[in-house]
Amino acid sequence: MKPELLLSRIRVVLCRPSHPGNIGAAARAMKTMGLSDLRLVRPRSFPDPEADARATGAVDVLKSAKISDTLPEALAGAVFVVALSARRRDLGPPIGEPREMAARLLAEAVHGPVALVFGNETVGLSNDEIQQCHAAVTIPANPEFSSLNLGSAVQVLCYELRIQAFAGLPPVVDQTVTPFTSPLASHDELEGMYAHFERVMTDTGFLNPEHPGRLIPKIRRLFGRARVERDEINILRGILAATQSRTGHARKN
Amino acid sequence: MKPELLLSRIRVVLCRPSHPGNIGAAARAMKTMGLSDLRLVRPRSFPDPEADARATGAVDVLKSAKISDTLPEALAGAVFVVALSARRRDLGPPIGEPREMAARLLAEAVHGPVALVFGNETVGLSNDEIQQCHAAVTIPANPEFSSLNLGSAVQVLCYELRIQAFAGLPPVVDQTVTPFTSPLASHDELEGMYAHFERVMTDTGFLNPEHPGRLIPKIRRLFGRARVERDEINILRGILAATQSRTGHARKN
Repeated sequence: MKPELLLSRIRVVLCRPSHPGNIGAAARAMKTMGLSDLRLVRPRSFPDPEADARATGAVDVLKSAKISDTLPEALAGAVFVVALSARRRDLGPPIGEPREMAARLLAEAVHGPVALVFGNETVGLSNDEIQQCHAAVTIPANPEFSSLNLGSAVQVLCYELRIQAFAGLPPVVDQTVTPFTSPLASHDELEGMYAHFERVMTDTGFLNPEHPGRLIPKIRRLFGRARVERDEINILRGILAATQSRTGHARKN
Repeated sequence: MKPELLLSRIRVVLCRPSHPGNIGAAARAMKTMGLSDLRLVRPRSFPDPEADARATGAVDVLKSAKISDTLPEALAGAVFVVALSARRRDLGPPIGEPREMAARLLAEAVHGPVALVFGNETVGLSNDEIQQCHAAVTIPANPEFSSLNLGSAVQVLCYELRIQAFAGLPPVVDQTVTPFTSPLASHDELEGMYAHFERVMTDTGFLNPEHPGRLIPKIRRLFGRARVERDEINILRGILAATQSRTGHARKN
């Protein structure tokens, strides 16, 4: 697949950005590296003249940016999602360096749209947001001052993506190809499966919604790691549905 | 030589910067990557509150920045000098990519101070300035829009310098999994889980043992890929057992 096409499949998602100038800087950083798909989740102020000013020649990226109310909406259809995270979380997904994660993103982009998610300038991403991502990336930095500007962080990651997209074909990530491989599940299909798990666990009393503990994050972590395929989601949801209909049927008796 | 010491020997020289905000952004970019020696050649406005605002926690780098009237003054004592240049010049020095030039700068920094020189935001470096440099570096970019913001360009090059200065040392990012990781499941624990899946699938009618198709191999493939941990097996078997006891309980009624 052509590097330009791979890069066009990489979404940059900014969650709740506070400073419109940073949105403009992110758009400029993306365009210099050949990316164009910008998504904004609840920006404090957008459109904004300050965003246009900082975007300079990348105002087209701003103009075509899609705004959404929630992260899941911004991630709909994405088959692989990486969060920028400055620190390790107890319940977070596996974390890697930019070079490694850029290679992963490009390899997954062969299968469909992928996304790189950035948090708010001050508070970063919430745990809930992080858990919607398959992996996390940390930019190595001075431990005494590791706070990159949002636009600069977007620039570094887009730069790694461009370098690697043009460095040759992306590495083959699926080393376990079998004759019955199906396409990777999209973000919304995965979320649908997690919701189904939660329903069955609640209905059977395995999960107490008042005291959920870490059950759901642990299930997300397991399946996030596995890179679940669409067929597999169908099987798992089939099993869940079968237990429900049996229970439901039995209840009626 | 220690990476921190090598990085401290790399000067960042901004020639005639127009926007004080970019000076602040450069200072912040430098400090996040462990650089601190900033030189300014005839800045249009400095010090400036806009520079301080964009530097955030790197105001110390601004405070210790040295201002000079000419580039030779800013380069005094440097043993190796690289210019950022967006284009090849007829009379310019050899040009390389960031990764290669970061390696050169670090190699030369063993011998003494080195410098990375950035031009004005609009006009770049003059031919006279370029010719004072031993080499030039170009950041690979979208040919249709290659204009990186000055602060972003400083960020990308300082990032490459840090990555390479620390290459060979243990990664900064701890690749091990999260603190609540449990040991990997053993072979027999995995087999126990597969048998449990099969029982529930058969009991609910989801699986017909006479015509099992590829359901079991597909489930094995999914969980085999995920490298399931013991805790995760316990959760999955807990869910399976919960659906059984509900069904079983209902049946008895």
